[in-house]
Amino acid sequence: MAPPIAVVLLSGGLDSATVAAIALAAGFDVAALSFRYGQRHGAELAAAARVAESLGVTRRLVLDVDLRPIGGSALTGDLPVPKDRPAAALGADIPSTYVPARNTIFLSLALAWAEVLGARDIFIGANAVDYSGYPDCRPEYLHAFEHLARLATRAGAEGAGLTVHAPLLALSKAGIIARGAALGVDYGRTVSCYDPDDAGAACGRCDACQLRRRGFEESGIPDPTRYQAGALR
Amino acid sequence: MAPPIAVVLLSGGLDSATVAAIALAAGFDVAALSFRYGQRHGAELAAAARVAESLGVTRRLVLDVDLRPIGGSALTGDLPVPKDRPAAALGADIPSTYVPARNTIFLSLALAWAEVLGARDIFIGANAVDYSGYPDCRPEYLHAFEHLARLATRAGAEGAGLTVHAPLLALSKAGIIARGAALGVDYGRTVSCYDPDDAGAACGRCDACQLRRRGFEESGIPDPTRYQAGALR
Repeated sequence: MAPPIAVVLLSGGLDSATVAAIALAAGFDVAALSFRYGQRHGAELAAAARVAESLGVTRRLVLDVDLRPIGGSALTGDLPVPKDRPAAALGADIPSTYVPARNTIFLSLALAWAEVLGARDIFIGANAVDYSGYPDCRPEYLHAFEHLARLATRAGAEGAGLTVHAPLLALSKAGIIARGAALGVDYGRTVSCYDPDDAGAACGRCDACQLRRRGFEESGIPDPTRYQAGALR
Repeated sequence: MAPPIAVVLLSGGLDSATVAAIALAAGFDVAALSFRYGQRHGAELAAAARVAESLGVTRRLVLDVDLRPIGGSALTGDLPVPKDRPAAALGADIPSTYVPARNTIFLSLALAWAEVLGARDIFIGANAVDYSGYPDCRPEYLHAFEHLARLATRAGAEGAGLTVHAPLLALSKAGIIARGAALGVDYGRTVSCYDPDDAGAACGRCDACQLRRRGFEESGIPDPTRYQAGALR
């Protein structure tokens, strides 16, 4: 019997690379879904392609959904990316890098692809520890989406359920890195930075860089991230 | 005090034009959201522009979200549009014109725009009578989305609710037409056909045309639809 297909949201960052490895280890045939949504940089999508390749994932889809006209986020160019925020601020508020309803939009598109593929599983790298400030990373949100998905689709109408897996939900960044490293994820291929240079080198100073760097430090695993010259002052 | 903003999903069809008129009559400042999602024809978007203009709606957004790579629907070019289906079949099954998870995708994008605009109301032309075959037109689905929306957003995280209005949910097509006509909707500006010609003239034979035509007949209101030559055999 062919393994069941799971749609995995793959951004090219550390978290989603780990999730893809977890889905593969769980025996799923991974269908990797990425988005060209108007993010500032193409480094993320290039990283998603590298990650998929290194994991041997060949079923990939990159969808165009331009969120820029909606506005309201530093990640789609409206606002500056905050840098050098104090550690206590990270995860404590809803930062300007929050993209309105992004997880809902991405999960909806994953749901559409899952329906066409006949998949009953979606994996997302949502995390309630480092991203507690993002409303759409909370467990109750994910449960609500799962409930919605069962009602929204042809498969659901015919009685089949859909499961949204968020295996990183309760993990610290160090815990995520340890988990992925054990599964052989090559984090040198991932890009987490909200403001990388054209070559994909990380700024070292945005929230995502700070959380990632601290995660490697705490995990005791060497940090393979390429930083911009002078980033680590 | 400025009237509250409501995001209205405006496709250019008969239903959503009626919904926009209802939202205006209820005192909302209408923000009309349309999509370039890879639908076969541009007639729909041209109609949305005409409808918005005739209603005096100036706050408009057309988002690009290409659903074609996902496949699985006659409306995005994968499958033929069914024609001349018997009346009993209309609404009884999930037809090939169903676009997987479309309402979920569109509502998610409406939610994002609502969040940026500070709107707490979304209007959608979902209908459970003629489209009982579409899982994402059922009342329980819409309630689930409303619940999700409250959990998904910054506003929700701060305690504000969001209401999804589906004022056509329990109306027949004739009832919708009567309601819109009373509000002054010019249905000659709308396009419902799944397969119009380049000039926007209706085929008269797809499910949408058949339901619309029957609706005008039953309402006793003259049908202003432009049909293709020979469409009404």
